[in-house]
Amino acid sequence: MTSVAHLVEKTTEFVRDHVFPVEREIVADGRVMDDALRLELQKKAKEAGVFGPLSDPAFGGLGLDTRAQAQVLEAAGASLIGPLAINAWAPDDGNIHLLAHVANPEQRQRYLAPLASGEVRSAIAMTEPAPGAGSDPTMLRTYAEETDSGWVINGAKHFTTGAQGAAFTICVARTSDGPTMFLVDADNPGMTVGRRMPTLDHTSAPGGHCEVLFTDCEVSDDAVLGAVGQGLTLAQVRLAPSRLVFCMNWLGLAVRGHRLAVAHITERTGFGAPIAEHGLAQGMIADNEIDIAAARGLIKQAATTIDEQGPSSSQAKHETSIAKTFVAEAVWRVLDRAVQLHGGLGVCEDHLVARFLVEARAFRIYEGPSEVLRWSIARRALRVQK
Amino acid sequence: MTSVAHLVEKTTEFVRDHVFPVEREIVADGRVMDDALRLELQKKAKEAGVFGPLSDPAFGGLGLDTRAQAQVLEAAGASLIGPLAINAWAPDDGNIHLLAHVANPEQRQRYLAPLASGEVRSAIAMTEPAPGAGSDPTMLRTYAEETDSGWVINGAKHFTTGAQGAAFTICVARTSDGPTMFLVDADNPGMTVGRRMPTLDHTSAPGGHCEVLFTDCEVSDDAVLGAVGQGLTLAQVRLAPSRLVFCMNWLGLAVRGHRLAVAHITERTGFGAPIAEHGLAQGMIADNEIDIAAARGLIKQAATTIDEQGPSSSQAKHETSIAKTFVAEAVWRVLDRAVQLHGGLGVCEDHLVARFLVEARAFRIYEGPSEVLRWSIARRALRVQK
Amino acid sequence: MTSVAHLVEKTTEFVRDHVFPVEREIVADGRVMDDALRLELQKKAKEAGVFGPLSDPAFGGLGLDTRAQAQVLEAAGASLIGPLAINAWAPDDGNIHLLAHVANPEQRQRYLAPLASGEVRSAIAMTEPAPGAGSDPTMLRTYAEETDSGWVINGAKHFTTGAQGAAFTICVARTSDGPTMFLVDADNPGMTVGRRMPTLDHTSAPGGHCEVLFTDCEVSDDAVLGAVGQGLTLAQVRLAPSRLVFCMNWLGLAVRGHRLAVAHITERTGFGAPIAEHGLAQGMIADNEIDIAAARGLIKQAATTIDEQGPSSSQAKHETSIAKTFVAEAVWRVLDRAVQLHGGLGVCEDHLVARFLVEARAFRIYEGPSEVLRWSIARRALRVQK
Amino acid sequence: MTSVAHLVEKTTEFVRDHVFPVEREIVADGRVMDDALRLELQKKAKEAGVFGPLSDPAFGGLGLDTRAQAQVLEAAGASLIGPLAINAWAPDDGNIHLLAHVANPEQRQRYLAPLASGEVRSAIAMTEPAPGAGSDPTMLRTYAEETDSGWVINGAKHFTTGAQGAAFTICVARTSDGPTMFLVDADNPGMTVGRRMPTLDHTSAPGGHCEVLFTDCEVSDDAVLGAVGQGLTLAQVRLAPSRLVFCMNWLGLAVRGHRLAVAHITERTGFGAPIAEHGLAQGMIADNEIDIAAARGLIKQAATTIDEQGPSSSQAKHETSIAKTFVAEAVWRVLDRAVQLHGGLGVCEDHLVARFLVEARAFRIYEGPSEVLRWSIARRALRVQK
Repeated sequence: MTSVAHLVEKTTEFVRDHVFPVEREIVADGRVMDDALRLELQKKAKEAGVFGPLSDPAFGGLGLDTRAQAQVLEAAGASLIGPLAINAWAPDDGNIHLLAHVANPEQRQRYLAPLASGEVRSAIAMTEPAPGAGSDPTMLRTYAEETDSGWVINGAKHFTTGAQGAAFTICVARTSDGPTMFLVDADNPGMTVGRRMPTLDHTSAPGGHCEVLFTDCEVSDDAVLGAVGQGLTLAQVRLAPSRLVFCMNWLGLAVRGHRLAVAHITERTGFGAPIAEHGLAQGMIADNEIDIAAARGLIKQAATTIDEQGPSSSQAKHETSIAKTFVAEAVWRVLDRAVQLHGGLGVCEDHLVARFLVEARAFRIYEGPSEVLRWSIARRALRVQK
Repeated sequence: MTSVAHLVEKTTEFVRDHVFPVEREIVADGRVMDDALRLELQKKAKEAGVFGPLSDPAFGGLGLDTRAQAQVLEAAGASLIGPLAINAWAPDDGNIHLLAHVANPEQRQRYLAPLASGEVRSAIAMTEPAPGAGSDPTMLRTYAEETDSGWVINGAKHFTTGAQGAAFTICVARTSDGPTMFLVDADNPGMTVGRRMPTLDHTSAPGGHCEVLFTDCEVSDDAVLGAVGQGLTLAQVRLAPSRLVFCMNWLGLAVRGHRLAVAHITERTGFGAPIAEHGLAQGMIADNEIDIAAARGLIKQAATTIDEQGPSSSQAKHETSIAKTFVAEAVWRVLDRAVQLHGGLGVCEDHLVARFLVEARAFRIYEGPSEVLRWSIARRALRVQK
Repeated sequence: MTSVAHLVEKTTEFVRDHVFPVEREIVADGRVMDDALRLELQKKAKEAGVFGPLSDPAFGGLGLDTRAQAQVLEAAGASLIGPLAINAWAPDDGNIHLLAHVANPEQRQRYLAPLASGEVRSAIAMTEPAPGAGSDPTMLRTYAEETDSGWVINGAKHFTTGAQGAAFTICVARTSDGPTMFLVDADNPGMTVGRRMPTLDHTSAPGGHCEVLFTDCEVSDDAVLGAVGQGLTLAQVRLAPSRLVFCMNWLGLAVRGHRLAVAHITERTGFGAPIAEHGLAQGMIADNEIDIAAARGLIKQAATTIDEQGPSSSQAKHETSIAKTFVAEAVWRVLDRAVQLHGGLGVCEDHLVARFLVEARAFRIYEGPSEVLRWSIARRALRVQK
Repeated sequence: MTSVAHLVEKTTEFVRDHVFPVEREIVADGRVMDDALRLELQKKAKEAGVFGPLSDPAFGGLGLDTRAQAQVLEAAGASLIGPLAINAWAPDDGNIHLLAHVANPEQRQRYLAPLASGEVRSAIAMTEPAPGAGSDPTMLRTYAEETDSGWVINGAKHFTTGAQGAAFTICVARTSDGPTMFLVDADNPGMTVGRRMPTLDHTSAPGGHCEVLFTDCEVSDDAVLGAVGQGLTLAQVRLAPSRLVFCMNWLGLAVRGHRLAVAHITERTGFGAPIAEHGLAQGMIADNEIDIAAARGLIKQAATTIDEQGPSSSQAKHETSIAKTFVAEAVWRVLDRAVQLHGGLGVCEDHLVARFLVEARAFRIYEGPSEVLRWSIARRALRVQK
């Protein structure tokens, strides 16, 4: 067995033995996924040797290439909170990747090290309420003005993932030299984390999606990530791997939902036979198998391209856009069929598939709605042929 | 303006003025839809002259034929709680229809009259936990044994819609002469309403979907609805109209979701233009218009057949099966597109479409999962051609 | 039985007894659908009392309203050449409608009378090779210049439906006062009917889709249809009924294909049972039933609106756009499933479904491609809500 | 550049320079694809160094593994007759594979050598008219009776691919010891190649799909391929690679159709802009890119499994079933969108996409209809989970 295959096996066992029971308590009994619970799960993941698939061994991570990540994160994704337990969940996955690529030595020590080790969580503040930046980053309105001693940020954000309890937030703001990323500490008095938004994906993470207000928020020059004016470029650096990590995680959940459905229809009987022997149910099982295999193939291809051509290459961007669009829709179809195969029980949270479906809805929108991605895929196809 | 068109207009106004504000409080602020609130809304519906579209004028209803119901209930369905406010919501709609067709004079007085007037709610206890009856009614296990003075019912039900707070429950049980329907009063000590099941459609009704236990539950001979052994036949009497009422109600919700999406993309801008001017968004709007028009056409056709050939006719059964299958899937598609058109806001319960989508998921399963209906539609098509 | 139901029955019998045998010879033996054959079939249709559903009794037609047409044309559509046999096939159906609405008395006598009676065929020359008018009529390049004695037309057309052997062609050309329709006789030396284009729908009509050249083509003022500058308005007059007639005809073919598939899978056995007992085949049969019922409902609704609000009303335009989009795609799906249910035989022209599928492909493009229609449907939905 | 990448480039050039012009003549001018033309093209392929991707260097082939075949055959598939030109087209591809695996030395010399070198073509006679074997091979009725000197075969076949002009036919027949494969020479007087069936995929190959009659057809013991009774096992040996070769070839055609569509909409203008700038057209381009990428990923995965676990492994069978089902449907969608993007021209055989679409229809049926494959995929998924 290769070392990757071994790691996949260990991840599968870890999730089954340590994460599934907690997930059940969260979905069925309303146990809250807070930081205490996160730290407890991550401690177990470290003991099991499956913690940190996205980070460097220097920070206690496993140092996997993207192809290996694909296999491990699919295994972890079998639970809604599996990826979090191994520290491969949004927005920390993307922030780890971003900091690893662009943070200066001091920033690496202060922000990346504790984040990669799971000591702290982080947030990213990009999306803004209308008429600010949604899917279109050029509409950014949050503004950072340069002062003698640094910068003052003003603006409103929402859908700031992970903001509640995050040790720091990466805030994207306009400057006179273009969009720029700033590292803002949680205790900065100019940053107020407001309401946790009532989103459909409320189960799977501490920190939620929050409203965040920057009011005369002062930061020093050291807070600039990369260089002034590079904000959108850096967002691109973060984007391809972050989209693909989403794909890996959610594919894992789709596989789990599919298996729960297979188990259910094997046991359950109706109209004179196990449901599993009815043709229309078999058709849905086959469609799930096809969707899962196709999703896996697209992830593998995009992962290979990231490893070989780099995460910022044009080909990586194109292939992760394709993968994100297909996988998000395939995951949705698979979970929807899993619900349908459960019959009435499928819409009852006694069964995990009901919650899985609801949580998964956002995946077709976050990190690029399918329609925006299609637009971008088409324009590249048209451009390349020319 | 015809009297039906006038009624539709009044219903639309009533829902907009009196129901929308309450719906907003329920979805956004967690206000509970209990019986006090139901009675308050129904009182206003009576004042507005829009109460009781499914019941006879003798009981204070509007005495509409099915075609007229289709228009009025679509208007009421614009809100998740609109149909309840005019007393046209499951399971009372189907129970009113059933009792109107088969109840004896005493039962009409005791059960139908207060139900039709909105004084009380009712429940229907059909579905059972495995290995009992789910989609396949022949698997019924709840058993009623005849005694000298009546019947003793034993068995477990779940998904008993409306059970919490219902004045009575129609329980379907096997007897030595075949499946039979029994009217069981709420205060019968042999009937225990247990847990409200955590279903995805939790917002829209008082009474929930509950677990109900019948333990040596004694009822008199007067409790038999129709005749002993007619249980499945009566379920069929109830089925076609009940499915169609569901279609009318949910189509109304889909139309509302579509309109919310149209309004949203008209106001919201991205990539240099209102979202409404982007081709892929326009395609989704057009697909919604097409799905809505096709759904409306199928409901109208099935309603005409019920009016002309009766609700128990073979043609009515076939056409309501077709309508239920298409409408349930079309409503789902329309609401899903409405969510997608809202972008990130679409998966946030600040916007109604998020809740609408989640609530609507059960419609593709309740009253006949799409797959079971397809099976039934196909067998009839094959039989007829022979 | 109503008189419409009686006419539907007679049409069904006529098609079955007189048209099916000829259709078989055309598809299987390559018999050519020429004008001699057309006249022979139309003679029989007259004898059977089913000729002329779209024309006025004054011209020997049946004078049906649009709702009745829907039923009769669906029955005729059971064969690829059924609608032609009763004189309800493109482009004559639309030209009859157009002439009935706008021709002056002399034009009625000279053009409409022989066309409605089936004595002659006609053509319509609208579409042009790039960069001329395709789906976008504003790109019209064919030009008519006014002279002392009338007009001189110059330009190239293609996809001129029915041109080979047509007695006259309605040519749409720009003038200094806007697009205008001209009646051009077949023997006009300035009009050259060129190549019959090798389109996929080659079986179903005499006259084909042709390339037509207008070279200093002189016509008198009497040749103007309606008024100068009204060309696009008149195209709109023609459009809604013409689209709906297409829907009626092709729905009939889909129903026939579906029935052939039902018959096939009832007879044919595989994997231990008749194909008709396999769940996935049943699912396809059910989907066909649903698509057919939904298509029929949309046609009926649009027909009612044409009858009640007129063919040029905004509502008629919207509803025929919706019907055309859905029906064209539904017909395609139904015939595609019919092919698939035939297995290998389905792609062999020994079986009619193979030819039906190929012929039907154009319907999603002619008279408005689905994408252009969706655009138009969406814009109206957005406009109305405002 | 790797040697495979180099071979792909050479194949692309060969097809573009030598095959496209001939394809154009076939589709537009009705030039017939006969053996003289085949030999001419294959001679050029040999000169270009791209002949024989599926065969052993011992027979003049390129000796590629399956992964390399995937890339080369996709390049060749850009033309309907590209795979034939390099000797990688049905049924010869599967017969080469089969013979390479099971033929004895004499059979290799006599049958495999000339087939692999392109000297001759072959056929496979499996499918039978009802009530014989269609998708269900257990229904085989053609019977071979053992005699003193060999075997006598009697039975009727149809859809015998390549039969016209084939040097030999592999006939599957029942014997008292089970289904068996026999090599039957073209000049055997007991084998009559009858009518070429009028299938939709008539352009792409010499030899057609034929009716073949075996009447007291005598063959010697040397004609048995593999061993008596192994017929269905050998069919399985042939099946996985054969399905995957189909996928590679047809994916190539889909890519070509997609590129033709991209070129068309880039040049063509409507509604004020190039079609390529309209959102709905862009959505179709993106969907094509996604379908193509997903298809390629599934082919690559199945090819890897064939190379690593063997073509008869259970995993190879499962993955080729998944790939065949998805790719056949994806190719169909891509070509259908390519037609639609061409507008009216798309259904006119002046443009290749019209012919491509019609030819491609059979791919969803041949070598396993999608429904039968789904059934098989589902059963394996259910079995594995147990």
